[in-house]
Parts: sequence; C-alpha cells; structure tokens
Amino acid sequence: MEFAMDARTEALKAELEDFMEKFVYPNEEAYEAELEAMPEPYAFTRSKILNELRDEARRRGLWNLFLPGERGAGLTNVQYATLCEITGRARTLAPAALNCAAPDTGNMELLNEFGTEEQKEKWLTPLLNGEIRSAFAMTEPAVASSDATNVETSIRREGDEYVINGRKWFITGALNPDAAFFIVMGKTDPTEARHRQQSQIIVPRDTPGLKVLRSMDVMGFKDHYNGGHGEIEFDNVRVPVSNLIGEEGGGFGIAQARLGPGRIHHCMRAIGMAERAIEMMCARADSRTAFGKTLSEQGVIRDWIAESRVRVEQLRLMVLKTAWLMDTVGNKGAHTEIQTIKIATPQAIEWIFDKAIQVHGAGGLSQDFNLAEGFAYIRTLRFADGPDEVHKNALARNELKRQRALREEKVPANA
Amino acid sequence: MEFAMDARTEALKAELEDFMEKFVYPNEEAYEAELEAMPEPYAFTRSKILNELRDEARRRGLWNLFLPGERGAGLTNVQYATLCEITGRARTLAPAALNCAAPDTGNMELLNEFGTEEQKEKWLTPLLNGEIRSAFAMTEPAVASSDATNVETSIRREGDEYVINGRKWFITGALNPDAAFFIVMGKTDPTEARHRQQSQIIVPRDTPGLKVLRSMDVMGFKDHYNGGHGEIEFDNVRVPVSNLIGEEGGGFGIAQARLGPGRIHHCMRAIGMAERAIEMMCARADSRTAFGKTLSEQGVIRDWIAESRVRVEQLRLMVLKTAWLMDTVGNKGAHTEIQTIKIATPQAIEWIFDKAIQVHGAGGLSQDFNLAEGFAYIRTLRFADGPDEVHKNALARNELKRQRALREEKVPANA
Amino acid sequence: MEFAMDARTEALKAELEDFMEKFVYPNEEAYEAELEAMPEPYAFTRSKILNELRDEARRRGLWNLFLPGERGAGLTNVQYATLCEITGRARTLAPAALNCAAPDTGNMELLNEFGTEEQKEKWLTPLLNGEIRSAFAMTEPAVASSDATNVETSIRREGDEYVINGRKWFITGALNPDAAFFIVMGKTDPTEARHRQQSQIIVPRDTPGLKVLRSMDVMGFKDHYNGGHGEIEFDNVRVPVSNLIGEEGGGFGIAQARLGPGRIHHCMRAIGMAERAIEMMCARADSRTAFGKTLSEQGVIRDWIAESRVRVEQLRLMVLKTAWLMDTVGNKGAHTEIQTIKIATPQAIEWIFDKAIQVHGAGGLSQDFNLAEGFAYIRTLRFADGPDEVHKNALARNELKRQRALREEKVPANA
Amino acid sequence: MEFAMDARTEALKAELEDFMEKFVYPNEEAYEAELEAMPEPYAFTRSKILNELRDEARRRGLWNLFLPGERGAGLTNVQYATLCEITGRARTLAPAALNCAAPDTGNMELLNEFGTEEQKEKWLTPLLNGEIRSAFAMTEPAVASSDATNVETSIRREGDEYVINGRKWFITGALNPDAAFFIVMGKTDPTEARHRQQSQIIVPRDTPGLKVLRSMDVMGFKDHYNGGHGEIEFDNVRVPVSNLIGEEGGGFGIAQARLGPGRIHHCMRAIGMAERAIEMMCARADSRTAFGKTLSEQGVIRDWIAESRVRVEQLRLMVLKTAWLMDTVGNKGAHTEIQTIKIATPQAIEWIFDKAIQVHGAGGLSQDFNLAEGFAYIRTLRFADGPDEVHKNALARNELKRQRALREEKVPANA
Repeated sequence: MEFAMDARTEALKAELEDFMEKFVYPNEEAYEAELEAMPEPYAFTRSKILNELRDEARRRGLWNLFLPGERGAGLTNVQYATLCEITGRARTLAPAALNCAAPDTGNMELLNEFGTEEQKEKWLTPLLNGEIRSAFAMTEPAVASSDATNVETSIRREGDEYVINGRKWFITGALNPDAAFFIVMGKTDPTEARHRQQSQIIVPRDTPGLKVLRSMDVMGFKDHYNGGHGEIEFDNVRVPVSNLIGEEGGGFGIAQARLGPGRIHHCMRAIGMAERAIEMMCARADSRTAFGKTLSEQGVIRDWIAESRVRVEQLRLMVLKTAWLMDTVGNKGAHTEIQTIKIATPQAIEWIFDKAIQVHGAGGLSQDFNLAEGFAYIRTLRFADGPDEVHKNALARNELKRQRALREEKVPANA
Repeated sequence: MEFAMDARTEALKAELEDFMEKFVYPNEEAYEAELEAMPEPYAFTRSKILNELRDEARRRGLWNLFLPGERGAGLTNVQYATLCEITGRARTLAPAALNCAAPDTGNMELLNEFGTEEQKEKWLTPLLNGEIRSAFAMTEPAVASSDATNVETSIRREGDEYVINGRKWFITGALNPDAAFFIVMGKTDPTEARHRQQSQIIVPRDTPGLKVLRSMDVMGFKDHYNGGHGEIEFDNVRVPVSNLIGEEGGGFGIAQARLGPGRIHHCMRAIGMAERAIEMMCARADSRTAFGKTLSEQGVIRDWIAESRVRVEQLRLMVLKTAWLMDTVGNKGAHTEIQTIKIATPQAIEWIFDKAIQVHGAGGLSQDFNLAEGFAYIRTLRFADGPDEVHKNALARNELKRQRALREEKVPANA
Repeated sequence: MEFAMDARTEALKAELEDFMEKFVYPNEEAYEAELEAMPEPYAFTRSKILNELRDEARRRGLWNLFLPGERGAGLTNVQYATLCEITGRARTLAPAALNCAAPDTGNMELLNEFGTEEQKEKWLTPLLNGEIRSAFAMTEPAVASSDATNVETSIRREGDEYVINGRKWFITGALNPDAAFFIVMGKTDPTEARHRQQSQIIVPRDTPGLKVLRSMDVMGFKDHYNGGHGEIEFDNVRVPVSNLIGEEGGGFGIAQARLGPGRIHHCMRAIGMAERAIEMMCARADSRTAFGKTLSEQGVIRDWIAESRVRVEQLRLMVLKTAWLMDTVGNKGAHTEIQTIKIATPQAIEWIFDKAIQVHGAGGLSQDFNLAEGFAYIRTLRFADGPDEVHKNALARNELKRQRALREEKVPANA
Repeated sequence: MEFAMDARTEALKAELEDFMEKFVYPNEEAYEAELEAMPEPYAFTRSKILNELRDEARRRGLWNLFLPGERGAGLTNVQYATLCEITGRARTLAPAALNCAAPDTGNMELLNEFGTEEQKEKWLTPLLNGEIRSAFAMTEPAVASSDATNVETSIRREGDEYVINGRKWFITGALNPDAAFFIVMGKTDPTEARHRQQSQIIVPRDTPGLKVLRSMDVMGFKDHYNGGHGEIEFDNVRVPVSNLIGEEGGGFGIAQARLGPGRIHHCMRAIGMAERAIEMMCARADSRTAFGKTLSEQGVIRDWIAESRVRVEQLRLMVLKTAWLMDTVGNKGAHTEIQTIKIATPQAIEWIFDKAIQVHGAGGLSQDFNLAEGFAYIRTLRFADGPDEVHKNALARNELKRQRALREEKVPANA
C-alpha cells in the first residue's frame, strides 16, 4: 500500500496550483461579471478572461489533462483524479480553462474510443483544440431516465439518413451557441433485446428540425458558465448514416463506457468544491461573533467542521481507489466501487455545503458566496446518471449475489 | 382534550378552500407568468390577477384574517393557524390575495399594538386596505444578526428628527416600489443596557438618503411574488421624531412581541407547503415507471411518503398547541413551544421537499414544479429570526434551568 | 381545540404522582435488588415490595386504570394515556403496581371484549384481581412474524379438543411461573382465506406438551421485572374447545383489535421513559466538568437536550391525538394515526436514550443507570407488532390511495 | 498510489484465513458454551478450546502479530491492520487465540517501548508467551475521563514505595483472575504542569489493598471472553518504586503513545465485525419471506445493504491510510487521521449493526446471533479513549488552526 503520489502527478499538481493561484482564483469574480454582461451569457466560450486562461493553460502543459492516450496528456485515472480535485475548487472557471469541462470531456473520450476517423477529424479535433463545444442528449422529460432503456427518442433509418424524433431536457451546454453538435441517444430498433435497442448519433446544431426550446433552471440557477441546461426538440431531424457512433444497437454499451471516468471527474471536482466550502466555513466561523464568542469557538460549529473533515477524507480515498482499480483491472472490475462513489459523493458533500451555508447566515444562500450555487450543483449529482436510489438498488443486488456465492463456497451444507 | 375545530373555523375553512379551488389554484401559473412579464416584476401588487383575487377575498370575508381585535377578523391564533395552513398551499399567491402576507402582517400587528393614533392612520389603515406595502429592516450584512443586540445601524436624535445610518440586507419586499415604508431597527443609545439600546422607527421609502441597492437572491431565486429581498443603505436618513414606534430603547421588546404570531404563520404555511409537496410526490410516484414498477410501488419511495406523513402530523399538532398556548396563557407562557416549532418546522419540511424533489427527478429542481423554490424558501427558515442553532441553545438553557428547579424541589438533599 | 386535561384526569394524575413520589421512586433500586436475590427471579409477582405497592395502589383507586367499561376504571384512551406516561417513568415497577402491565393488559382487554362468560370468570377475574399473570404467544422463530398470516403453529380440532403444535419465542412473561395461561395464536384452517386461517386459544401453563424452553435475552437483558421473554414449545398440547376465544378463523381480527389501545400504552410509557432520560441527561450534564466547563455549557450537549425536548413534545401530541381519535371515531378511524405513532415513537425515543447514555459516559451503558436497559427496551419497539418498515409500507400505501382519491375528486380531467 | 497489499501480508492473510476457516469459526459457539459452563467464566484464558487454538496459532506463525520490532512479528501498521480486520470477524475468540487481544496488546507495546529490562523480563515476557494477562486502569467513576488530566487517583511516593489510592472502573480484563497485573494511571504531583502530573505504574494483582469490586456490565453483557470490565479500589496499595513506567510525570505522554496503534487495531477489528454483520444481513434477507417477497427483494433492505457497503469501504481506506501515515511519518504526523478514524468508525459500524439486527427481527437482539453483543461493543467505542465529541472538538480546533495558517500564507492582506 502506498498513499503517496508519483513524481509526474506531483509536478503537474504544483504547476496547476500555481496556475490556480495566479490566474484562476484572482479572476473568478470578474469572470462571473463578464458572463453576466455578455449579450449571450451562455456563450461563455467567448469570454476574454476564459480565453486568456486557456492560452496560459496550454503554455503550461495543462491542456486536455483528462484524456488518456496519445491525443491527450496520457495520465492514468489516479493521476488525473488528483488534478481534477484542484480544478473543482473553482469549478465554474478552471475546468473550462484546461479544456477539461463536462460534457465535452465525456464526448471527447467517446469519440476517441468509438468514433470513426472521419468523426474524429470533424468533431474530436476541434473539441480537443477548444474551438467548439458539444453536448450529450440523453435525459427525456416524459420518462424516468434512471432506466436507460426507457429512452423514447427514435432514430429511424431512411436510406442514407437517420431521422430523429423526440424531446430531451437538462442537456448541459445546449444553450451555448458554440456547442456545435449533440451526441443523441435514441432507439434505432425498439423490437430488439432490451439493451440493444439504443444507438448514439452525432447531430450538428444547425440541422433543420432541431430546436433548443428553453433553459432548464437548477434551483433558480441558469449555469451560464457551462452553457446552461437546455430542453431540445428533435422534429424529423435528418443526419447522414455516417454520423452514427459505433454500430446500431451499441448505444447502451457506449453510454456505460462513458460513465466510469466521468464519475471519477465529477466526484473529485466535488471533493475540491467541498474543500473550498470547508475553507469558507472556517474563515467565516473565525470572523463572526455572536453572544460573546466567535462562531469557531461554538461546539456545534466545531462539530460540523470535524464531521466535514471526516467525511471528505474518507470519500477522497474511496474515489482514488476506484480510479486505481479502473487503471489496474478496468472499468468492469471497478463496477462496485464506481457505484459506491456515485452514492457516497453527493450525500457527503451536500451535507458539507449545507453546513457551510448555515455558518454564513442568510448571506450563504445569496449570490455573494458560491455556496448556494454549489449546493444546487451537488444536489443535481443525486440525479445525474440516474438517481442514487437506482444505484443503491443495483449495488445491493450485486452484494447479495456476491454473498450468496461466498456462502455456497464456504458452507457446502447449510446457511 | 379536544382536537376538533370550532364551528367558525370550520366555516371559514370551507369558504377559504372554495376560494382556493375556484380562484387560487387555477391562477397560479398565470400569475407567475404575469409577474415575469411585468416591467417591474417586483411590483406584484400591481398584478391584475392578484387584484381580482383580492376583491373576491374581500367579498367573501377572507380579508385580514390574521389580525386579532376589532380592526381584523378577530380570530384566535388557533383559529387563524388552521386557515394559514391552507394559504400556505399556494404561498406565492394566496397570502397576498387575503392581505395576509409577510412582512406586512407583522408590521400591521406591530402598528396595531404599539403605534400612535397618527401612525395608525397614516400607515396601518392603508396597509389594512391593501393600498400600500411595507418592509421590516433588521438583518445587517456586517454582523451576526442571530444576536439582536449586535445591530449596528444608528438612530441618532438631532432636534426633532432622528438621523439613521447603516446598512441592511435580506429586507423582504424592499424591491417592490409600492412598499411605502420601512420599519427600521437600530440603536438609539449604545451606552444603555444591552436590551435597551435598540429602537424601531418608520422610514418612508422616498426619504432622502435611503437607497435600495440590489436584490439579494435566495438560492438563485428572486422572489418577485413578495417584492424580493433588498439590500438597503441608510445614509443620513432623517425622519421626524414622531416616527419612532413606542419609546426609545423599546425596540428589542417590540421585536420580541412581533415574533410569536409570525412564527405560527410561518410554520402553518410551511405545513401547507409540505402537504402540497406530499401530494405532488404521490402523484408523481404513481405516474412514473422504472424497472417495471411504478415509483409508488418501490419500497424506498414508500418509506419517504410514510416518513413525510409521520413528520407533518406531529409538527402540525405542535404548532397548533403553541397557538393554543398563546391564546390561553400568552406569548410569554408559550415561549418554549414557540422555540420548539421554530426548530422543528424547517428540519421536518426541508426533508419532505428534498424527497419530493428526488421523486420528480431532474425536473424537481427546475422551474417546472415549485419544489425547488419551495425548498429554497424553507431553507431560509433555518436562518429567519436567527439560526436554529441559537434557538436550540436557548431552549436547552431553559430546559436545564427548569430541570434544576425540579431537582431542587423534589430532592432536597442531593442530586 | 383544547389541549388541557379534564378534571378527573387531573385528579388521578395528582394522585398517581403522589404515589410515584412516595412509593415508586423510593423503591426502584430495592425492588431490582429484591428480584435479583429471589430464588425465582422471574416470579416478580411474589416480590414483597411489589405487593405492598399493589395494596397501596388499590387503596388509592389506582388499580386497573387501563380497562374501559364497568370492570375497569372506565377511562377514555386520552384520559388513561396521560396517566400511562407517568407510570412509564418507572416502567419496571409502576405499571405492575397498578395492574396495568403488558402483556396482561392486552389479554384482559381481549377477554373482556371477546371472552365467554366462563372464560371471563376463570381467567379474566383473577387477572383483574392481580392473582395470576398471563402471556400472549404469537411470534415464531421460523417465520417473519411481521406478516401475521405467516404463523405456522397449528390448532387442529380433534373431537372436543384442539391439538396445538408449534414453537413460539419472545413470549413476554412466559418465564414467570405465575403466568397461569397463554393466549396462543395459530392456524385452525390453512385452506381458508388468508385472514381467516388464524384462531386464538387459551392454553393453561400446566397443560402437558407445553414446554418453556429458555429465556430470550434482549441485548443481554433478561427482563425479570416482567417475567422475561420465553421460547415455548407446543408438542401435541390438548385443550378443550371451550378455550377458543371467539370463533374459528377470528384470530387475525382479534389480534388487530388488541393492537390499538396497547400501542397508546406503549407509546405513552415510552414518552415517560424519555422524560426521565432527559432529566437524567440534564442532571448529569450539570454535574460533570470537562475542559473547564460543565457538560451543560457545551454546545453539542445543549443541542441534544433541545432536540430531545423538540422530539418528545411533538410525539406526545401525536399519541394523544390518536387516543382522542380512538375515543371519538374508533380504532378503525384512527388507523393511520395508530401507524404513525408506532413508527414515530421508537425513532424519537431511541435517539434520546442514545444521547442520555453518551452524556453519562461509560457508566451510561452499565447497570448503574437504567439507560442501557431502557435503550434495549425501546429498541425492541422497532420490532414489536411487526417491524417499523412494514408499518411504513402500509402507511404509504394508504397515503397513496387517499391521494389518488383526492386527485380524482378534484381534477376530473387530468392528473 | 498503490492499493494492493505486499506479498508478506498476502501470505499471512492466506494463512490466517485458513486458520479462521478451520479452527476459529467452527469453534465459536462451543467456546461461548465452554466459558459459560466454567466455574470462573471470566478466566477465559483457562479455556481448553482457546489454548488448543493458541498452540495452533503459534505453530502457524500467527502469534504476537501486533508487535513491531524483534520481539514481535515485525509487521508495519498497514500490514498488521489487514490481518486485524480478519481477526475482528470473530472478535471474541480470534484475537485471544493469536495473543493479539486488548488490553494486553497495548500493555505489551507500552512495556516494550518504555519498560526497564527488569519490567520486561518480569511482565512483558510472560505476556508475550501468553502465560499471563494484564489490564490497564485509567477510567474513573468520579470524573469525566475524556479529559485525561482529570484523573484523581493518587500515586504518592513514600521512601522506596509508591502508595496508590483511588477508584477505577470499566477496567477490561480485571475480573479474570489470570490478569496478573494492572498498569495504573494516577497523579504523582498535582502541583505540576497540567500534562506532567500523571504517571503510570505496575501494580500486581495480589498487592494488598487492591480490590476488584464488581463487574461493570455493558448493555447487559458481561464480556467474559475478555475478562469482563471491573470496578477496582486502590486503598493504600504499595508497590516498589521500580514499578514506575518511565519517569514521574511521564504518564500522559505514555498514554498518548499507547493510543495510535491501538486505535488502528480497534478500527480494523470493527471493520471485520461489520463485514460479518453484512454477511449475516444478506444471508438472513435471502432466507426470510414477508408479504410474498424475500427480504432481499425489498427496496428498504437493499438500501441498507448498499449503504453498509458504501460506509465500510470508505472507512477501511481511511484506517489503512492512517496506518500508512503512522508507518511513514509517525504517530504525530498521523494525528488528524487518528482522530478521524476514532470518530468515523463507531458511527459507521453502529449503523450497520443496527440494520443487521433489524433484518433479523427480534432474534437479532437475542443471544442467538452475536449482533446485539456486537452492537453493544461498538457502542462502547463512542466512549473508549474519550467520547467522540471530545475528539471532534479537538479535530475542529486543529482544522481551524490549519486553515488560519493557510489563509495567512495565501492572502497576505485580508481574510
């Protein structure tokens, strides 16, 4: 067992922390103001501040860190995870500055692994260069998307084209006019076996019949910094068959493959957010006095601070172990652990944000601190990739199965 | 013991429920849209829909139900509490339609009890008639307002005038241009005993030096329906001495008196909100299917529904008992119970909203349901009138004192 | 609404409190020591102390308070509930001293309501006189008793006798040799409809084939004060047909009828226990110093005290309302509320005991305070009459049904 | 980062698991029965079964695994931790069989590090050989032992002897007549600086004036398997000055040193207990049917199983990292982490035991499963080495200090 990081990670971490200190933290407020003042506030990719930071990140070798293999930084999941936590500390700016922001990271991974050469050239290269943005369209308003086989959007073949009909919502990035294409999940053959009905397909933004209808707010927030969350209509949208990713019926499998690394990223960023919330909680508790004592001298507040530390330390190790498993035995071998961190992360960190807000008084819910927005974001993690309850159910089913196997092995005669 | 309601309450309840069914519920969505489309979205008092409903409420004898005594409906706290729960079911519209919305209700009570005849005529009468709105300015950005003696705004006498300097925030209603005056809490004499330094004074909105600086958002929401929450600057604001409410140094006492009935109202409305959230949770759980079963057939969802019912039933009784105590032994005698409901209400109902949101999936956090906005509102109750932690501390101090007295009484020799 | 008690209840309460102060509290420790020193420690009914107290209780008119109607004190459920809380403060002695201890109370109610004249004379009269004790045998080791239809014990008719075969456990009182009979739940006809298979029958303790096998411990405790909890074997046990209570197939219905008042008793006694735990928590917190402050000055301890008060106040009102409903609309009309208190009571009070223990340090888990034993007892309430989870599930099912009906009524066209 | 174990650990683990399967699990029940039937049930060291297992453990090189350095197995904390989890699965038998049971392990470590040669020969050697047992006497009934400086027992020098007066309780192992000596914590000089008043001294069991008064029960359990928990009186007990461990005034420091490894052991054993509880929960859930479904198909039960897995996985990593830190930077450098696991372990595992009990129904609280006894043991961990609340307070104080330092470093000008 070895809990220390390797030299390359330490070096990148130092570089990244320096970048954060000099470029990200000092620009957070100005960036927010810039976005709000822009005529198209969802087009964050056009921000002057962001683009300067992107240049600096490229210069420092902090670009596309998320992507394994030759086209990216070639980091393992464990290595990138550590860096990901740091960007999470300034989640509205840092990930975008490093070209490591969702949902593009997932789309880039997907195209890198499953895309044709033509698809890579046309869509992956400009994404990797930070020239365009993209979105991933899976969740639908009419069905419980927790069960991916529920998807109702149809992708019907007609000659050399696929015709897409359906409605999607909470499509992150969709309101950014620079999101040049959508990867759409739909059903090519509803008569197939349950996990072979779905396919994924690339739909350019300007395709006729595609309409971005409105922003879906998240607890009152519009999330300009990542292009909002759109509701989209696909009304007889036609794209060439060459836009299909992988094969017909392969959509569910691709969606599964997309989940593993993305979950590490989400969880580590959330841990970075939690660390910052703890910092804010401590600073505030030191600076406020009530009934003759600073808040940091009050027992209940201390209890919150201690609990926060206890929860975040355990969680980080769990995420890192999951990343390590993915590196050593693959995503499939890390299945249980991936479920574990999906469940554990929001419940730990939502609690921390709640307490950080409470220490800030009414101000903690306002726009003056990022705590309420952070809370709202963490809250969405309890739905993202399916509600936690679905994952708990699946995890328990596996645990029960595993225990059954152990019982049979060990106790031949009785139970 | 008798848990049934009296005949007058039952009659008013039937009238109010009819009003809700025929006028409030059918207009909720339209009202929201109307506000958003208005040039001054905080001036909800100018809404056509609202004013039609106000006329109807007046016609039906559902006007100023909150106010005891001759000027109001003359209801007891228990009687009004029951009605208040019903308006809470549509909290953005119903309380305003009945002229029973905070913060005006508290201000009306306060003027009714402590105002001079002149103050009553000038400010109370138009409030009771629904011609103007008002705000209550107590919370300050620079200090922990949980400790009311921390207030830093100064109210200094100069001849026949008081000069007010200070900054307030989260002043509900302040962004509504029709909020004609503010009741401001400040210090008239910082050298006095700790609870005799504060005074309350009426400051008309158009007084020079008073500036409404901005809206304080609540988890991304702007709460147009009640005039938002403003940050306000008082820069050498001068008002005549006759604007003082009560006597110099009486501000803390008046603030305390204001709390009791207000807390009943808040809690009962929150219970109404919870009932509606449970309705929505059940309806949604029936309408969604995942993994071959409706959500309402899944054990975990049922657990949430049962817990919600268990929590809300207990809480309601607690609030009603507190109201009954206020009616029978006065606010002072109900002190512990008032603290109890302040603590119990947000923790019970925030939990219910959290679960109702979860059952709705991502949509539950969006603008399509009122659940996220309701959650945000309930979350503020954990700060309103001081954070729950302060009240718990005080409640425990009293409990310890009471137990000490009991021990001394019962066990003369040892403990 | 009226939260005050009537005059008769107040008078009985004063009498009972006087009895507690003068006779019960001063004898608690001695009673425990007496039981331990007895040759048959489960035969608590032979205790000298207990019998003196029983005489005193009779003299004071505090005998059989639980029983409605002519044979008992004729109190309503609300009236008795208030008294029941007081006896719960000394649950190992006071209920027995008043002839108001489970499981005899339930058996007396059952015989009073469903017994033949002969059964009443033979079994009810001596129970009411406190001459014998009894037990109720329902739970079985081999099946999930949460589902009462699972019961496997057979009651087969052969001529003028019923032949009983089966095994029961956790039969409270069974180890007391003075428990003269068992009311046994079993199946007379497994081919009948699901809720018509069960019957209840009286089995005298000395019937051949009935063996009390052992004590079932509860978290290490043996509960001598109520005759322990036995495991019992019925091996071809024969009793005359006249021992059947009610009719064949009526057992399930009788079991249901037995539940209502019993639950009020359990819950109110648990509330009395909680009040005493709060007293002990406060006294201890005042008497211990750590790090320069008494425990009662520490924020976290205060938080526990406040939460305890908040939880117990709400819970008591809920139980009282349930009792009131049973008095006014009957057990069936109070169905939901009876479920509610079954769920709410253990979770509130277990938490309070846990905190009271923690304030007492290691001593809190020892035999020196009754807290650990109280915790263990409260813990059993989460199983008693079926695990809480079963009741939550049923409560939710009813809530969903009720909401469906409301939706249909209110919204004829859509959902 | 590397989460795999080294080869030596893997080999020992395989050996230990084989030992568990062949010798420990098959003997658990018989061992319990043997202890109960012994004339001195606390003298578990005289058990035939235990001694056979000890011989086998010696043969297999599974003896004294806990002790670092030449006299022991020479394992690191991380290496031993992994093995410790396995013994925790059968905590009443396996640790004793390997001579790795508390409190002897702590005493052996202490003597190994701080003892004189004479002390080592006289007391350490027979302990290492498993010939005697020992106890550690620190907790006192009269003061809050959470604050170690509260200790009131006096150790006064008189010529060549120390005279000890005081009272201790919850002294694990004290009721075993084979516990040959006590290491006693007391004050040699109450006028010294706060952390230099205490000393530790060896007191042989047969010293005049030492009286073991009684067993302190833990939730009704007497814990024969480790010699119970005694209350002890020291009435002018005299021992030679050579019995002092370390120097006068060094007692607090020695106590601190004793804590680190001990906490790893306790936590890992508790994790082993949790794993076994999960196994039992799953097996039971598969084997019981209620309302037409096995418990393992019910959503709420699955939720518990999933949560159990989620909690135990995170916790184990946290304990292992703490062990690794102790190995690499020393106990002092691992201070925060040691606090973290002290806080995190009982709260995670108590929850798991609670749920495992609930799945077992009433039986779960009885002597038929070890769940209630396990629960009681885990419950004591919330007090052991001071209540969790004290540790949380200290952890928060450190976190606040650390954050202050970070703020000063990063933000030279403001906060």
